[in-house]
Amino acid sequence: MKEVPIKKSIGAQTILFPTPILIVGTYDKSGKPNIAAVAWGGICCSKPPCVAISLREATYSYGNLMEKKAFTVSVPSEKHAKEADYFGIASGRNENKFEKTGLMPVKSDVVDAPYVKEFPLVLECIVIQTVKIGLHTQFIGEIKDVKVDEDMCGADGSPDIEKIKPFCFDPASHGYYGTGKFIGEAFSIGRK
Amino acid sequence: MKEVPIKKSIGAQTILFPTPILIVGTYDKSGKPNIAAVAWGGICCSKPPCVAISLREATYSYGNLMEKKAFTVSVPSEKHAKEADYFGIASGRNENKFEKTGLMPVKSDVVDAPYVKEFPLVLECIVIQTVKIGLHTQFIGEIKDVKVDEDMCGADGSPDIEKIKPFCFDPASHGYYGTGKFIGEAFSIGRK
Repeated sequence: MKEVPIKKSIGAQTILFPTPILIVGTYDKSGKPNIAAVAWGGICCSKPPCVAISLREATYSYGNLMEKKAFTVSVPSEKHAKEADYFGIASGRNENKFEKTGLMPVKSDVVDAPYVKEFPLVLECIVIQTVKIGLHTQFIGEIKDVKVDEDMCGADGSPDIEKIKPFCFDPASHGYYGTGKFIGEAFSIGRK
Repeated sequence: MKEVPIKKSIGAQTILFPTPILIVGTYDKSGKPNIAAVAWGGICCSKPPCVAISLREATYSYGNLMEKKAFTVSVPSEKHAKEADYFGIASGRNENKFEKTGLMPVKSDVVDAPYVKEFPLVLECIVIQTVKIGLHTQFIGEIKDVKVDEDMCGADGSPDIEKIKPFCFDPASHGYYGTGKFIGEAFSIGRK
């Protein structure tokens, strides 16, 4: 007799683990830097290297992205969880989020967008496609360069997740969780 | 004098934290269940609730998705990291990945796709858009239902990240990392 899985239906919800917290930097028409926290997004293509972020049309960043066709994604360390959370609560329409937090905008040298100086890892992107889905529109950005704090790299010179200490967003409980322990090598532990 | 950030350029790369490991289930034309590990993807819209996954045209899952327009995303616990890794190494064209691992395919009751019985959280999706980007094509799936193991839920009945113990993929080091400690409440810690 086939065993029945003890799974229950909880309806159509946006629950997935892990979900990132991406800090998206844009300029508005007047050149004022804005920053927003985006949980719906991730890498979406290897060649060209691309990252996707989804935004509601009502957001200030949406207008900036439509205008400038450029953005950055700054990845915060867990020590900046409060600032990252604030970036997702306030709107750049009413507040200058850089000034409020004391974090510093740096103009990218490759795209027309600012990033957060204090955050260790930055992706600098040009919008190559916009995809209207529903409440959210997806912006697909080609990654033109990646910048990383030198002291956040490992011996091989690439970004070190154990130093960067990125964190994730839990869409079910609305909590933030840190990065845990190393489990194994990808493309390796499954060969056995 | 403006302080210069000590960031170095490492070129255009697909490095982002956290990056998920999504286990995508599809049927082929003959009805054989296939399963693949996908790192490029994530939630992309709240209404309708949608998840995006990116696949190369060369994969077996790509053909299945084009044919069936349905898929599931199973989220593995860290105890199944080996099986998840294997799902990303082997191709369903040459191997029956369910049989090899001993994990059990379960036919979704809402979409024409199988999921992994042993994995605690499952999203069941219908493809509503395909977006050709470059090497990867993105499939946007509307989430029709979410299923979760009853013993993996918290007191409020929703999926409990601390019980599920999801893990992430580090695109820089090609390592898998577990979920770490609770850092704070979203939409809350940033209000101060």
